[in-house]
Amino acid sequence: MAKSRLVTLMTDFGTRDYYVGAMKGVILRNCPAARIVDICHDLPAQNVVAAAYALAYAVPEYPDETLHVVVVDPGVGTDRRILAARFGEQTVLAPDNGVLSVLKNHLPLREIVSVRNPRYVPPTPKLGTFHGRDIFAPVAAHLLNGVAVAALGPPCDSFSVLDLPEPVSAGGEVTGTVLYADHFGNLVSNIPSDLLTQLAADVTEICVEVSGQHVGRLLPSYGFAPAGEPLAVINSMGLLEVSVNQGSAADRFAAGFGDRVRVTRNR
Amino acid sequence: MAKSRLVTLMTDFGTRDYYVGAMKGVILRNCPAARIVDICHDLPAQNVVAAAYALAYAVPEYPDETLHVVVVDPGVGTDRRILAARFGEQTVLAPDNGVLSVLKNHLPLREIVSVRNPRYVPPTPKLGTFHGRDIFAPVAAHLLNGVAVAALGPPCDSFSVLDLPEPVSAGGEVTGTVLYADHFGNLVSNIPSDLLTQLAADVTEICVEVSGQHVGRLLPSYGFAPAGEPLAVINSMGLLEVSVNQGSAADRFAAGFGDRVRVTRNR
Amino acid sequence: MAKSRLVTLMTDFGTRDYYVGAMKGVILRNCPAARIVDICHDLPAQNVVAAAYALAYAVPEYPDETLHVVVVDPGVGTDRRILAARFGEQTVLAPDNGVLSVLKNHLPLREIVSVRNPRYVPPTPKLGTFHGRDIFAPVAAHLLNGVAVAALGPPCDSFSVLDLPEPVSAGGEVTGTVLYADHFGNLVSNIPSDLLTQLAADVTEICVEVSGQHVGRLLPSYGFAPAGEPLAVINSMGLLEVSVNQGSAADRFAAGFGDRVRVTRNR
Repeated sequence: MAKSRLVTLMTDFGTRDYYVGAMKGVILRNCPAARIVDICHDLPAQNVVAAAYALAYAVPEYPDETLHVVVVDPGVGTDRRILAARFGEQTVLAPDNGVLSVLKNHLPLREIVSVRNPRYVPPTPKLGTFHGRDIFAPVAAHLLNGVAVAALGPPCDSFSVLDLPEPVSAGGEVTGTVLYADHFGNLVSNIPSDLLTQLAADVTEICVEVSGQHVGRLLPSYGFAPAGEPLAVINSMGLLEVSVNQGSAADRFAAGFGDRVRVTRNR
Repeated sequence: MAKSRLVTLMTDFGTRDYYVGAMKGVILRNCPAARIVDICHDLPAQNVVAAAYALAYAVPEYPDETLHVVVVDPGVGTDRRILAARFGEQTVLAPDNGVLSVLKNHLPLREIVSVRNPRYVPPTPKLGTFHGRDIFAPVAAHLLNGVAVAALGPPCDSFSVLDLPEPVSAGGEVTGTVLYADHFGNLVSNIPSDLLTQLAADVTEICVEVSGQHVGRLLPSYGFAPAGEPLAVINSMGLLEVSVNQGSAADRFAAGFGDRVRVTRNR
Repeated sequence: MAKSRLVTLMTDFGTRDYYVGAMKGVILRNCPAARIVDICHDLPAQNVVAAAYALAYAVPEYPDETLHVVVVDPGVGTDRRILAARFGEQTVLAPDNGVLSVLKNHLPLREIVSVRNPRYVPPTPKLGTFHGRDIFAPVAAHLLNGVAVAALGPPCDSFSVLDLPEPVSAGGEVTGTVLYADHFGNLVSNIPSDLLTQLAADVTEICVEVSGQHVGRLLPSYGFAPAGEPLAVINSMGLLEVSVNQGSAADRFAAGFGDRVRVTRNR
């Protein structure tokens, strides 16, 4: 790993308890030169889908040789594996629960191992529920100190991939689903912008529904709708998003993961 | 800009998504020596008034030559400008939406430009909604790397200033309004302490109402009222604040932005 | 203090306002080489019990000679003291309100002083409510710059200790109380694991109630219960915790601080 000793943290631990602070302490105790960067700690609790998207869109922005530690881990303490992987020039340490499902489409997977070499992985406490502090943090410090990914354990033939819904384009319309609601209540769908440009060369001719409710037109950005009015945008991930300007689409449409998004060409 | 490469971030992005993490990644990729400091990421969504006060009371505390990046930007993707400015020895990068309205009263404005030099500003994506990552972060990295504010674009003759309500002192009373509720539910008003000392030499003789509801006396600090009881204080910004000791005044009085605060002399 | 200039912050200030940012600014202005680490800023407001546990379980993880600044301070502006203390190889700056009650059982107290030497402590503003910015931050910078704890004021003979409830083991059962609910809604009790191993050599034979409601078995970790089902675990602090797998026990059992937890041997 890198001389930069840059490590990002992404968890659903919140910022109410000592959990994040304990992880940081263990990393710094074992690698005093570590430079810790908080990506986010309020990922929706145990929501691997939201975490997978956050990871995929944050990681590629970082300098080469950054380490990213993700702990959204509903299976903590069960026999789920912990993975260390090289994606492009980035290194990721994560539970094997599907959280790598989107990142693998963004950066080439170079190497992936099951983290279990007892030389680097502390023995799991029998009654333990905090692998972030007890396993992820000390292993992260080893990586920051120069231990190679390959040294952490045997290569994996496969890893968990989420069975995410795929959008469908047929009969002059596109149907997809809501993936999650973000901090602002924007409903992020699984419909990429290229499916929309196939539907209508001028995307402003497009009309959107969520859960059978009319949303309205696709606009260039939030501020093009009046305050309080719904709209659709292509968001910063290149995905169709249902929004309310200066409001919450999640509240307005009472919608969330799995709800249907339908796009037609405006007449 | 400075050798310290210190940059603060202040946004309404929350800590649930990848947004803050992506901004940090872009800054670090373009300026690996950047030292990033989080001021706050849970500013009330799209609330420029609250952001303007937060900016004005945080920025002056920092070492000279710190860069401050503010992204509370309901107009993202519209034709609102992005500003870079020198206030005293501090540098600020912000949307031109009024967020500089209070800071300008605290530090002398030395220089302000409209950020649009294509040498430093990436082209705006046509369907883009994330200028924090796509414009603010790379421009911040240029500033941290030594690019001068003046190089980013032409000087501005004027910039947006919020039409904030002014308190009125007349007839032996002061009337003002609530600006916003803070994290604790304290109702921050626009009434500065000097208006109160004009009303009564001994400010503990002062009596406060909010939205027509009796609050009580002005006390030196929260802990001088019994737990659960309302009081008024002069807060850390030198403004009159309506509070409930160990409780929420926003809940207790169902009050918020624009509600009337009335101060009289106790008889 | 240390050459590392590592300082952690733990507050109930939230991340909505300028409060945390102002503290960081004052520290950096007075000690530009400070390395600031956020432990948490969303401690339950004015909840000294939760803060005392968070402090006790975060501090020992850090490198020797780290400074920890805790501001959960319902008594701000009253005549409560501010303390600086050496616990083991760690330094802590905190209000004298009981927040050191748990840490003192984890690390040996070496030295404790009342922070009031006017050479290092700025005069208290008469109408001030923000000692985090006005006292804690500048004193922290002095410590980071090499001022000794002993220089800050006279030694204390005693300091505030919370009257925390103690668990009772009698008649083949253990009774304790809920201390607080964490970010996930887990109900943290005051019952340590060793009381449980005394009750039943095989702790999986143990059965738990909270507020008179049946919880179920003690399991090795959350993921051993079906999603949405309650369980008890030994948490990362070695304490009995009532949880709901991928849910909130605080909501499910409508329980919180002071509620009774009863543990019996399963028949």
